[in-house]
Amino acid sequence: MAQTAASTSTLMANAIRALAMDAVQQANSGHPGAPMGMADIAVALWDRHLRHNPSNPQWADRDRFVLSNGHGSMLIYALLHLTGYALPIEELRAFRQLHSKTPGHPEVGITPGVETTTGPLGQGITNAVGLALAEKMLAKEFNRDGHAIVDHHTYVFLGDGCLMEGISHEACSLAGAWKLNKLIAIYDDNGISIDGQVAPWFIDNTAQRFEAYGWDVIGPVDGHDIDAVDAAIAQAKKSSAKPTLIIAKTHIGKGSPNRANTAKAHGEPLGAEEIKLTREQLGWNHEPFQIPAEVYAGWDAKARGAALEQSWDERFDTYATAHPELAAEFARRIAGVLPANFAQVAVDAVIAAHGKAETVASRKASQLALEAFTAALPELLGGSADLTGSNLTNTKSTPAFRVEADGSANGGRHINYGVREFGMAAIMNGVALHGGYIPYGGTFLTFSDYSRNAIRMAALMKQRVIHVFTHDSIGLGEDGPTHQSIEHVASLRLIPGLDVWRPADTTETVVAWTMAIGNAQRPSVLALSRQNLPYAPKTAVDDIAKGGYVLAEPSDAGLKKKPKGVIIATGSEVQLALQAQATLAQQGIPVRVVSMPSTNVFDRQDRDYKKAVLPEGLPRVAVEMGVSDFWWKYGVSAVVGIDSYGESAPAPVLFKHFGFTAENVVDTVKVALGVAKLKGKKR
Amino acid sequence: MAQTAASTSTLMANAIRALAMDAVQQANSGHPGAPMGMADIAVALWDRHLRHNPSNPQWADRDRFVLSNGHGSMLIYALLHLTGYALPIEELRAFRQLHSKTPGHPEVGITPGVETTTGPLGQGITNAVGLALAEKMLAKEFNRDGHAIVDHHTYVFLGDGCLMEGISHEACSLAGAWKLNKLIAIYDDNGISIDGQVAPWFIDNTAQRFEAYGWDVIGPVDGHDIDAVDAAIAQAKKSSAKPTLIIAKTHIGKGSPNRANTAKAHGEPLGAEEIKLTREQLGWNHEPFQIPAEVYAGWDAKARGAALEQSWDERFDTYATAHPELAAEFARRIAGVLPANFAQVAVDAVIAAHGKAETVASRKASQLALEAFTAALPELLGGSADLTGSNLTNTKSTPAFRVEADGSANGGRHINYGVREFGMAAIMNGVALHGGYIPYGGTFLTFSDYSRNAIRMAALMKQRVIHVFTHDSIGLGEDGPTHQSIEHVASLRLIPGLDVWRPADTTETVVAWTMAIGNAQRPSVLALSRQNLPYAPKTAVDDIAKGGYVLAEPSDAGLKKKPKGVIIATGSEVQLALQAQATLAQQGIPVRVVSMPSTNVFDRQDRDYKKAVLPEGLPRVAVEMGVSDFWWKYGVSAVVGIDSYGESAPAPVLFKHFGFTAENVVDTVKVALGVAKLKGKKR
Repeated sequence: MAQTAASTSTLMANAIRALAMDAVQQANSGHPGAPMGMADIAVALWDRHLRHNPSNPQWADRDRFVLSNGHGSMLIYALLHLTGYALPIEELRAFRQLHSKTPGHPEVGITPGVETTTGPLGQGITNAVGLALAEKMLAKEFNRDGHAIVDHHTYVFLGDGCLMEGISHEACSLAGAWKLNKLIAIYDDNGISIDGQVAPWFIDNTAQRFEAYGWDVIGPVDGHDIDAVDAAIAQAKKSSAKPTLIIAKTHIGKGSPNRANTAKAHGEPLGAEEIKLTREQLGWNHEPFQIPAEVYAGWDAKARGAALEQSWDERFDTYATAHPELAAEFARRIAGVLPANFAQVAVDAVIAAHGKAETVASRKASQLALEAFTAALPELLGGSADLTGSNLTNTKSTPAFRVEADGSANGGRHINYGVREFGMAAIMNGVALHGGYIPYGGTFLTFSDYSRNAIRMAALMKQRVIHVFTHDSIGLGEDGPTHQSIEHVASLRLIPGLDVWRPADTTETVVAWTMAIGNAQRPSVLALSRQNLPYAPKTAVDDIAKGGYVLAEPSDAGLKKKPKGVIIATGSEVQLALQAQATLAQQGIPVRVVSMPSTNVFDRQDRDYKKAVLPEGLPRVAVEMGVSDFWWKYGVSAVVGIDSYGESAPAPVLFKHFGFTAENVVDTVKVALGVAKLKGKKR
Repeated sequence: MAQTAASTSTLMANAIRALAMDAVQQANSGHPGAPMGMADIAVALWDRHLRHNPSNPQWADRDRFVLSNGHGSMLIYALLHLTGYALPIEELRAFRQLHSKTPGHPEVGITPGVETTTGPLGQGITNAVGLALAEKMLAKEFNRDGHAIVDHHTYVFLGDGCLMEGISHEACSLAGAWKLNKLIAIYDDNGISIDGQVAPWFIDNTAQRFEAYGWDVIGPVDGHDIDAVDAAIAQAKKSSAKPTLIIAKTHIGKGSPNRANTAKAHGEPLGAEEIKLTREQLGWNHEPFQIPAEVYAGWDAKARGAALEQSWDERFDTYATAHPELAAEFARRIAGVLPANFAQVAVDAVIAAHGKAETVASRKASQLALEAFTAALPELLGGSADLTGSNLTNTKSTPAFRVEADGSANGGRHINYGVREFGMAAIMNGVALHGGYIPYGGTFLTFSDYSRNAIRMAALMKQRVIHVFTHDSIGLGEDGPTHQSIEHVASLRLIPGLDVWRPADTTETVVAWTMAIGNAQRPSVLALSRQNLPYAPKTAVDDIAKGGYVLAEPSDAGLKKKPKGVIIATGSEVQLALQAQATLAQQGIPVRVVSMPSTNVFDRQDRDYKKAVLPEGLPRVAVEMGVSDFWWKYGVSAVVGIDSYGESAPAPVLFKHFGFTAENVVDTVKVALGVAKLKGKKR
């Protein structure tokens, strides 16, 4: 049935449908179903509620919008184009092509107006929980009576896939506990996933589920009734202490006479013939990528957006007059600029650590460093996945975050994420994306497996998120192989754009924190020991920041000769390397010890520096309590590593059992130098 | 208040409490809180309901018990010891010591009676869903009127941590959809997690949540009222079409006057003084590890267990008389023995693939192989995380698994897991642990990140679980960097005990499947292409199974010279290597092409074979669309790899953009051979 005399709102929705089906058809790849199914919801939200300024996607107090079902990317591209963002129609024509601003899934930093990169399902809603958390915390920190300079909503579109993913449970459970009343999620309840009608594998009563989390649930409403969705959003905005889920019943691929309500609409072009039929059904008689002027006019949000931002600017000016220091601090924080004294705080912390030369676990060294940094940097937002006392992520400056009965934050800034590692990581991504905070969070290194894709997403998005992974090897002892990292440090080093640090002592730990905090474009991982580590005497403190450096020459071990070999070690094994160096020196064998707290950072140094640390021609042996495969890239001739799972026993017993003794390192080095023969050891 | 005239049941519970606190104290490490809090629940289940035979932990129709909160390992060790398993008191004294049968967390294969390795929270309940699924499916497949040879329950203990983890959502949602009525979970609702009273971070209405999944929920009951828990279990066993959650309110560390109801009870020894006070409060006047004979007598389940198994044996004999072929098949399947014709099926499939020499995507080659294997092996249980049509995991022999209105299975054996990658992986672990099926399941390779820890757990547990990871590189094209694997293949290769296969064509894919199915002690990963791959002509088909082999000598490219270099390639890049070899041959440069579908398997070959494939002294170049770091272990002098994230564009555009062209491989090899100079390329 062709529509006639369509309302402006309907025309606006159909413009999205047309752009989506035509762009997917042109790319011969993509997902038309979600944009076509959610077009009416999009009109309700973007035309009637969303407070944004297409001319300034970075306006601090804009509403945040997250397309958690990121495969429906043409929905957000259409919306950004139509409302007036710097996304011309040529970019929509270049959908999914190299170097276009319209990649297959939305990517923050590529497309103006895209707040987060989505596609891996469940993470968008979780990022949104982080965005809403940051808003609530910043409001508490910066708003003053009569000055609500932080006061915006976070809206999320999500589908069945996001709701099936486990991370949605972690995130939405926390959103309820945190009373994130400005978080409004709209569920595209179309009953279809890629494998077909979801009923055989997805029977959740989602309304009941979200009520169990402490959310308000509205609906089901007809997701094609723009006024009904509009009213639901208006109602949701009134919530004072609960997030809201709006359940909207929709037809995937709506407008396509033969593909609507089928899985076929989800992830492939409709095809020329079906597109023709869809145009007829929608009464959309325009060529592909042609949008009538009145539809553009209906969508144009530039004037309204400019007025919204100007109004906020005026309010901010008033605030700045009343609270000049707060205003300056807010501007600094939102810009992601560190305090002017950051470098000095870092230097002081290194000097203090160097001076004390303490023997502590590197997780404790991390807490000591954090005491200094959290005192100086109010933007540091700590947390742990229910292992606060083990990860040592809390400090005197970071009281526990709690939510008051009225829904407001208490001003605390250490978050108990509960046993939710993946959720924590993706929420931290959302916090970082919001701006105003530098999030860090802890769990055991082994459980980086749980959060791995969110770590990857932080790297892909170039977000400053810091992971504190403690209990980093078999050195955790009795908890056994389920909890002992073997492959994790090496595996994390392989994630592009991520810096992994495994510091050996207090000074290296301070430097690792300094680098992680200072690096605005990268996430970082700190792999930290459970067990105590002796301080490694050193002079080249400045070189720690290069990721790898000469920690000790033979002369430091009392042998005045040039090194004939190099031991490369990281973290808790640096002490072993130093012990081996001393023993070898007593035997007249001069070796250098290189501490390599971050291979990623070392790899970015210039060739000359790298050659100076690892001179060509000197045999090298790596020592690390992890899989050996990683180390061959450094041209080693042997690795003292561990390529099997660990065991449950006290740590000293395990070190001996797995060959992490100075004696074994000595033997291995001697074989590498050709001064002893292999004794039938593994390497 | 000291108890007097305690009932036998109370004494039995207190025996668990005493063993737990004393073993943790002796180890000076461990978790007394959960065993002490769940001791009464354990009496209700293990003494009054659990159908098991301590003398034969492998009895096929035993009830399965999973301690999902695996840190409470002393609970199950105490139960196994007390009921009569081969776990003498000396093993409890050696709790958490090297080579004891009582490691820090329960490990299957180490301790008789432990059904799965737990500790990484949320995975135990998910394994249990797999155990219950296998039971339901086997019952459908093998039971006949009057012969219920498969008829047992799966019981789970779980705590707050498991319920917070996202994977619990995935698993329990599926358990509801699958109407796993013989799954009974008991929630240790003590309101405490490591960070303290859970209220600020865990406010879920868990009863409402599970009702939303289609579970029956019983309680809250008093978890210290043994009769009440007993009655709840009895009620749960009557369920015909729903799993049951019993919510039991408990006091963590119950019996300890000062530690009960505190997070301090969770993960550290009580200390000598508190243990003394606990003994007094419990009225337990026995030395550590001394259990009174009457308590042993109360717990002893050997006679009852032997009778239960004998009764089943008799029923099975009757069944075997009526259905001899089915009985033999059941015995084979439970034993995990492959059909006698498996080898021939594999050979036939290889010959067929070799003969056809088809150009197909390796995901399609996988489906072709699966057509043969699923037809011959009824134990192959397929599935996909909502990507069936993309992963191509289904075959003509594997209709979709569905559950009838009465709760019974339909006989299908391809499972729509929904968008639940981690859940799928851990459920497959449970299915494999149950026995009777070889599970395999698909998703995109990038989302192996979501399931990574369950893959690790399969390797640690030595379970035959097969992961079909398709869309294995930038070759997937337009979906862009969120979906393009860069570091995944290399990262997965680092997991100890896992075999990763990345086959190049149809024959390699058949062999990869053959090896994966044939390897009863290892999980396997198949990384498969989205895009078509040409057949690679070969003679050494038998060598594929060695993981790496000489695919083509210079003579195969028309140059009768000995090779002066080696190109190592995997999967979709093998064709590039062959093209480069041909170009080089035309230029008079003889190189060998080694196809390396599984580095893990190649690494296990003997030294002579490895040297024959990769002769010393010949420069080597590796070609793989993934991070280059991995390949240096093979002594390569260059890698054509990709160390950044991908882009969204058609695959051919990306190949050129990232240097995956024969020309670039040729140039790289020539530099490696010293016949050309570096042209300022990355490598």
